Amino acid sequence: MYASILAGGIGTRLWPLSTRQHPKQFLRLLGERTMLQETVDRLTGVAPLDQMYIVTFNDYRDDIRQQLPELPAGNIILEPAGRGTAASIGLAATLIAARDPHAVMGSFHADHSIRNDAAFREALRFAEGVAHQGFLVTLGIHPSYAETGYGYIKYGEALSHTEGLTAHHVEAFVEKPPRDTAEAYLSAGNYVWNAGIFCWRVDRILEEIERLMPEVSAVLREVHAVALTSGGRMTPAVEAAMQRAWPRLRDNVTIDVGVMEHADRIAVIPVEVGWDDIGNWSQMARLFPVDAAENSIVGVAEERHFEVRSHDNLVYSATGRPIAIAGVSGLVVVDTPDGLLICAKSQAHLVKEVADNLQPS
Amino acid sequence: MYASILAGGIGTRLWPLSTRQHPKQFLRLLGERTMLQETVDRLTGVAPLDQMYIVTFNDYRDDIRQQLPELPAGNIILEPAGRGTAASIGLAATLIAARDPHAVMGSFHADHSIRNDAAFREALRFAEGVAHQGFLVTLGIHPSYAETGYGYIKYGEALSHTEGLTAHHVEAFVEKPPRDTAEAYLSAGNYVWNAGIFCWRVDRILEEIERLMPEVSAVLREVHAVALTSGGRMTPAVEAAMQRAWPRLRDNVTIDVGVMEHADRIAVIPVEVGWDDIGNWSQMARLFPVDAAENSIVGVAEERHFEVRSHDNLVYSATGRPIAIAGVSGLVVVDTPDGLLICAKSQAHLVKEVADNLQPS
Repeated sequence: MYASILAGGIGTRLWPLSTRQHPKQFLRLLGERTMLQETVDRLTGVAPLDQMYIVTFNDYRDDIRQQLPELPAGNIILEPAGRGTAASIGLAATLIAARDPHAVMGSFHADHSIRNDAAFREALRFAEGVAHQGFLVTLGIHPSYAETGYGYIKYGEALSHTEGLTAHHVEAFVEKPPRDTAEAYLSAGNYVWNAGIFCWRVDRILEEIERLMPEVSAVLREVHAVALTSGGRMTPAVEAAMQRAWPRLRDNVTIDVGVMEHADRIAVIPVEVGWDDIGNWSQMARLFPVDAAENSIVGVAEERHFEVRSHDNLVYSATGRPIAIAGVSGLVVVDTPDGLLICAKSQAHLVKEVADNLQPS
Repeated sequence: MYASILAGGIGTRLWPLSTRQHPKQFLRLLGERTMLQETVDRLTGVAPLDQMYIVTFNDYRDDIRQQLPELPAGNIILEPAGRGTAASIGLAATLIAARDPHAVMGSFHADHSIRNDAAFREALRFAEGVAHQGFLVTLGIHPSYAETGYGYIKYGEALSHTEGLTAHHVEAFVEKPPRDTAEAYLSAGNYVWNAGIFCWRVDRILEEIERLMPEVSAVLREVHAVALTSGGRMTPAVEAAMQRAWPRLRDNVTIDVGVMEHADRIAVIPVEVGWDDIGNWSQMARLFPVDAAENSIVGVAEERHFEVRSHDNLVYSATGRPIAIAGVSGLVVVDTPDGLLICAKSQAHLVKEVADNLQPS
């Protein structure tokens, strides 16, 4: 299988840990490896490194080369400008198609956390088989609560199954729901979270892009013509073709809105793999162990922090400075050399606005 | 008049701005001058610099010499160890008595804020006259609300007055009251806050110390004998005498508990001078202007802070880092190179406990 990993996000909702200069996917959020490295590690045995493409922007090229020194330089796709995931994923499919016109590719995000790598690989192997039959396959996450911040996928009849996994026909992609709708989805049982993880034959996705997004398709065809001469690798010639064609893309469109909501032959495989997109500080807070007062204190030596009459707080330090919380609850405190955030957990969605204001582009 | 300024406090309740290494009195909290410098400036015209003594500890000698370069070195009294304000003030009175046995001295704190210097000096000049008659005079602060964190002074009949100021006989010194008692004091009208500002003849205070605290008096007499040979200045000989005698002081006793609560001929002059002891972050918060959302953001450039759905917070930065608050209210956030504090304004009294834990002695 081939793989495409989207690594161009700027992770504004985890400011000031994630910044425009050092976004989330290049950070060691939870372990020894960065999220990008963990994403690549997770695909070991599914796609060889030579068949992995990273889609990103020029600003992050050095981070990627440093973090993935064995990745061929020609596998780093630098978009001239962000035009939505339809264009990003279409580009990866285009380069892969220039190497192998009927290849199956998976599409992943560099900044998602998945705890159960083995179950994830199992699901991908099953997805690969369904994709070979011509389906556009997405992995849907069994919802564990009524989240209102994700899109959902409604599924219908089963079309194929293997031990413990079933692929279903998709009935609808639905946008982020209000709370009561999310609760109805949860109890209905045939809705899963749309995690943006896909698997398909490159000819099938490019065919759907051609049908549904002709403007994007025209740009991709121009790149494809040059990529055929580079063996599907990024070269100065391919980059020049992208630079020429890119300005014709006027809109930012996601692959969900541009393709999946309207495409034919879509399948979803519901999975339980310990997925978390760590989309904001409230979600991040759930990933750390808590003490007796339900506080998580991360990154500060025991003798350098103190809490009194405080509960249900996350204190995340990247400076190691002494930190004290007194008489507070339900807060996220993030202390890094780039900035300081104090946010109510319940208002974590406001952090995007914070980051947009404090990091003018 | 002579003056004694107590500058040995460690200001734990303003951690992490005030630290053991750099306590409150040596900081520029509100303006261009440190609190110690402001205290000295305020006494200009009341006591010449040559007649001012600073009582402190060895750790802070360099700070004082740097901040008050024109103060004679012999006017810095270094206590071998803290034994309460009775011993500190008694030491200053002892050295002054060795220069002038009937001198009038004022006793002040280096870390109090007073907005109306002219009114303060006016009150001191009046106090000096009352002290000459043999009274132990204290300046009491007209209470502006029912504070439970201060001691109060109950006063009775007038004994002397000048334009706008009256000295009263003191009926009682009372300890920090519970809330309803504080409210009763406020409405009674003859209670003032005990700010620890005194004025008396050195022979009178030493006479009361002798009567009420004979153990302290014996130590001071030993120092006095040597100070007579140094003209009342700190010299190696005086310091040696202090080092010899000091270990005999076993308890820490305040001048209020040790002397004022039991002494004869005590007077209080109620004053309105814009006094604030800035005793904790909640009091500090009241000193800064607020924006439309009732937030005070101090020490961060306009484009480097952001607030959203937040009100009634103080953000005090000594690092200048970008800072954001989102969805929070009633907090004090203090960001310095020495540490980070997030505290509910209503729980500011907890900060002493924080500082004691994060700054082991």
